[in-house]
Amino acid sequence: MDFISDNAAGVHPAVLAAVVQAAPAVTQGYDADAWSNRLDAAFSELFDTPTRAFAVPSGTAANALALAAAVPPFGGIWCHAAAHIEVDEAGAVPFFTGGASLILVDAPHGKLTVDALDAAAARRRADVHQVQPAVLSITQATEAGTVYTPDEVSALADCAHARALAVHMDGARFANAVAHLGCHPADIANRAGVDLLSFGCIKNGGMSAEALLVFNPALAASLPVRRKRAGMMPSKGRFAAAQLLAMLENGVWLQNARAANAGAQLLARAASTRLLHPPQANELFLHLTPAERALLREQGFHFYDWEQDGPDAARLVVRWDQSPAAIAALADALGRLA
Amino acid sequence: MDFISDNAAGVHPAVLAAVVQAAPAVTQGYDADAWSNRLDAAFSELFDTPTRAFAVPSGTAANALALAAAVPPFGGIWCHAAAHIEVDEAGAVPFFTGGASLILVDAPHGKLTVDALDAAAARRRADVHQVQPAVLSITQATEAGTVYTPDEVSALADCAHARALAVHMDGARFANAVAHLGCHPADIANRAGVDLLSFGCIKNGGMSAEALLVFNPALAASLPVRRKRAGMMPSKGRFAAAQLLAMLENGVWLQNARAANAGAQLLARAASTRLLHPPQANELFLHLTPAERALLREQGFHFYDWEQDGPDAARLVVRWDQSPAAIAALADALGRLA
Amino acid sequence: MDFISDNAAGVHPAVLAAVVQAAPAVTQGYDADAWSNRLDAAFSELFDTPTRAFAVPSGTAANALALAAAVPPFGGIWCHAAAHIEVDEAGAVPFFTGGASLILVDAPHGKLTVDALDAAAARRRADVHQVQPAVLSITQATEAGTVYTPDEVSALADCAHARALAVHMDGARFANAVAHLGCHPADIANRAGVDLLSFGCIKNGGMSAEALLVFNPALAASLPVRRKRAGMMPSKGRFAAAQLLAMLENGVWLQNARAANAGAQLLARAASTRLLHPPQANELFLHLTPAERALLREQGFHFYDWEQDGPDAARLVVRWDQSPAAIAALADALGRLA
Amino acid sequence: MDFISDNAAGVHPAVLAAVVQAAPAVTQGYDADAWSNRLDAAFSELFDTPTRAFAVPSGTAANALALAAAVPPFGGIWCHAAAHIEVDEAGAVPFFTGGASLILVDAPHGKLTVDALDAAAARRRADVHQVQPAVLSITQATEAGTVYTPDEVSALADCAHARALAVHMDGARFANAVAHLGCHPADIANRAGVDLLSFGCIKNGGMSAEALLVFNPALAASLPVRRKRAGMMPSKGRFAAAQLLAMLENGVWLQNARAANAGAQLLARAASTRLLHPPQANELFLHLTPAERALLREQGFHFYDWEQDGPDAARLVVRWDQSPAAIAALADALGRLA
Repeated sequence: MDFISDNAAGVHPAVLAAVVQAAPAVTQGYDADAWSNRLDAAFSELFDTPTRAFAVPSGTAANALALAAAVPPFGGIWCHAAAHIEVDEAGAVPFFTGGASLILVDAPHGKLTVDALDAAAARRRADVHQVQPAVLSITQATEAGTVYTPDEVSALADCAHARALAVHMDGARFANAVAHLGCHPADIANRAGVDLLSFGCIKNGGMSAEALLVFNPALAASLPVRRKRAGMMPSKGRFAAAQLLAMLENGVWLQNARAANAGAQLLARAASTRLLHPPQANELFLHLTPAERALLREQGFHFYDWEQDGPDAARLVVRWDQSPAAIAALADALGRLA
Repeated sequence: MDFISDNAAGVHPAVLAAVVQAAPAVTQGYDADAWSNRLDAAFSELFDTPTRAFAVPSGTAANALALAAAVPPFGGIWCHAAAHIEVDEAGAVPFFTGGASLILVDAPHGKLTVDALDAAAARRRADVHQVQPAVLSITQATEAGTVYTPDEVSALADCAHARALAVHMDGARFANAVAHLGCHPADIANRAGVDLLSFGCIKNGGMSAEALLVFNPALAASLPVRRKRAGMMPSKGRFAAAQLLAMLENGVWLQNARAANAGAQLLARAASTRLLHPPQANELFLHLTPAERALLREQGFHFYDWEQDGPDAARLVVRWDQSPAAIAALADALGRLA
Repeated sequence: MDFISDNAAGVHPAVLAAVVQAAPAVTQGYDADAWSNRLDAAFSELFDTPTRAFAVPSGTAANALALAAAVPPFGGIWCHAAAHIEVDEAGAVPFFTGGASLILVDAPHGKLTVDALDAAAARRRADVHQVQPAVLSITQATEAGTVYTPDEVSALADCAHARALAVHMDGARFANAVAHLGCHPADIANRAGVDLLSFGCIKNGGMSAEALLVFNPALAASLPVRRKRAGMMPSKGRFAAAQLLAMLENGVWLQNARAANAGAQLLARAASTRLLHPPQANELFLHLTPAERALLREQGFHFYDWEQDGPDAARLVVRWDQSPAAIAALADALGRLA
Repeated sequence: MDFISDNAAGVHPAVLAAVVQAAPAVTQGYDADAWSNRLDAAFSELFDTPTRAFAVPSGTAANALALAAAVPPFGGIWCHAAAHIEVDEAGAVPFFTGGASLILVDAPHGKLTVDALDAAAARRRADVHQVQPAVLSITQATEAGTVYTPDEVSALADCAHARALAVHMDGARFANAVAHLGCHPADIANRAGVDLLSFGCIKNGGMSAEALLVFNPALAASLPVRRKRAGMMPSKGRFAAAQLLAMLENGVWLQNARAANAGAQLLARAASTRLLHPPQANELFLHLTPAERALLREQGFHFYDWEQDGPDAARLVVRWDQSPAAIAALADALGRLA
């Protein structure tokens, strides 16, 4: 029973069906096919605003391309100290941006605050010797499994825009955040001031395509050539586009996220005294001693130790396709621990 | 009836079936799944030598990653003036290599020769002011639809190795070259001195994965991290790996290339007086006046004008899944032109 | 008697005196000193237009920084096939620009023409697969010792601007071009449409500073930080600035170039039947057989063979401080050859 | 009376004299002159080991080139959170390295410790998702005006080498550290395990040249071409080399540092209750309220507020050529404050 990662999840049947339907030969290669041509419209409808959508092969690619469009090679990126772009993307940001610097800001539960940004700004002189930030990148849901409210996103975006910074959102688990908040997706994206959004699909029932969305047209201008230059413009673009369209049709993206979140809530209730962060998406961070972790593993549950939260921490991730039986079993096991 | 590009081709049923089989959830994300774990062995068997295989999302990605592993940021890459890496990859090579320079060498019919390389070498001083080549990149089949023989590849590789250059082959249509030569794939790759091979699949019946192969272990060392940093390590790596494995099983890769080549030969026979280059793979470059091109298009045949071969040139590409009827119709139309 | 390179020349007394005067401690480091603060005004006066001036340590630095300000990392630079940025700057342009590509255009005697640029433009599709030029770089005086007239510069700049390209001039020997033409410096720079100028000083009596001049204010915006990031903002900036100011005062820059050009003309007259290119600055390219070259060297004359003009070619460079006796001796020796 | 920065200091007469002597024309440009040819030997003698020495135009250049030689584009650099390469070099390191990441480690008084490095190592997984450090960079004297002992440098270098990391020392104030310790320069450099040293001269009586020294021959291999590609190989290289040689002759470098350190000790005694860090070189960091700072400035003393040490902090720097009268006056003024 795997609670290791949503990266190990299955593909939703609608996504698979869309890929199968795209298999025969078509008239045009690259992005000139009927599927790719519908991407902008489909995301524009979802976010209720003109949107440019680019299919890319990974979340790392979406983040790094988005940031490359928003920061000059000599600029900086404000992000949380635990942000995926800092911790787990192998230096993709300096690579894609041509040398931009991540400027780390810390704050509890993975959530940046305006106060934390103001303090970071105060520590940096606006001269030629110091790297100047050009973009703010926030993660939604965060690396701690928490979720920014629409007001929180707005406040951060206002703080960034007031300093002439663009706003990027790493939405690897954007769907889980929307499912938690029960809001319109635009409420934590374009309507809250986000300029570029990495809209995650793969962890959430997709196969091999993520969507990079741009709400600010000026920031989209360089992306077609940046994507091609990065080897990410597929010669049979229809397969990536078909996956993304299938995620959007009939609300598959939101329905999958709701399922995963609901499973996480069941586990959270069973481990309510052990929570290291408020559980608001599909990830749980729990206080579990090595002995307790060993006990759970003996019972067939798999998950990661989470050293960055200390020696007695573990991370449990609930997938969109996690079986109710496995969730119930783990909830039961957690309950019996104390 | 489209003869525009093999990028518009369909996906082979075996590839599609493999993707469908990989759809359910698995234990491990990234490249730790059962499919990814078999890649090295499958290509090692095909090439009869220990081989490292990396799934990547495009031919541009395969080429640029391969060259990044073989040239320092301040080095150069010898390639044909018409090479895809120079003409049609949007500057991916300087991006991935951190600024390496393409050193263009010209020669007839898209084929580099030892004499041409020797002359290029004689034009460059070995001092700190001039970019020094560190790798030779050749294309097989070439951009002119021609094919290097095993002896020709060996001679070029020897010339490169004697100067301490690595050898890369852009094999976007490697399968078509093998099909033309009737040789073992190793004969124009590792056995002929090739160190890194971009093994093309997508044009040849694949879906969204190409294989970057490394026969020289020292050159593979940096590729796992370079691939991750480039946003090309998929979080559900099994889908790319499954496609590549399906191409290899039962010789799908070779059978598809044979079909495409055979179609091109039928067309070549019908247009034998019009050939601009010896037709040895699945691309034909023909002398066709604007009026002749218009006439063909009126009959429903689609293809590109080919300005780089002059005002009276056109390119016709035969896909692996081109219908015999369409080929026969075009052959007939070509025959009736004169 | 050295005719090898103007890089071996001495420093003009006025430049040396300025350096000595700047030696005592001052109030401010970096570029906040009195000398640095006068740079913009001094060059604005010389070119009769508001000018931003940046002291840099080499011509390679001036060229590469200028181009980095004018081309995105994914863009291209039109230049002559023999341009110094292509041939002799070790890949500085792809380094400083973050991966931009040099697009080589050939034309006789080192001089680009509008026809040659139009032909180059016609060979390139305006799509995402091909690198699109963003700047034209021309060399004045050229690598062949020839000089563009004001009308020729204007025509090239118009051709570039009409395509939305910026115009850069590598003026390592700009002074020699002005001396040859007898025009106002602005006539072949800002008034002719040049946006960025590498204004050479070191070969022409300077010590260790060149000037990067920007006539188009929008292109200057990123240069302070690019220069700092490149390690080229000296902590005692007054020494570089003092050198540049001394070159401008009393017309030292022009007087030195006139001296060098005059020496070259004396030699050209003595070798009028051997000229490979029209001698218009301080470099001569001569038809000289190996035997003739050996004969000259036996008489104590030093110079480079010039393989790029064939096996019977040599380059002779006259410095600003070349002794009249040496020039006369070489003219005599050349005259006696035939 | 300026205590703002040693970057505003004067040039030592011996350095100026060397520049004047190098002014006449010579036989060879670039680095082929007699001065440049002696650099390696002069530094080899000083450090009592075979040393490669490269003249560069700034400390930023020395640091960034050194690190580029020691870390791959996808690697990391361990450094103190307050290191100049992080705080004040405008992103030069990611630029020169092609995208390497600074991995910040904090520790008191600007001095890294083995414990701090071990803890940093423990927080990072050795997998492809996380940037792996390839070099340790330490600053001597530190940004807090403190000095590592030979044993401390050795311990840090051992810790780095045990992990296969190279060791770089930012020695912008290396001379001040040697002067403080009274040791042989090799004792805190090559003999302690340092592989690359940025040997600062400009703050310490130089004019426009710093020395990048390499004790590990393998790490020097790429530096000639990296330096040329960075626009830092001067065409009249003799002027930079002459400055460096003059600094070494007769121990000018050490004598100047001793003078500056001695001045700082006089001030430290007068402000012994206000010291924020142990004063071991030529920089003092003092507890001074805004009112006290205003009072000092009214008396004609200039210096920086030092926000990074809090609202009541100031930095005072003593130059090699600071007048004894000014030092005495400031010492007196500091004494009268309490």
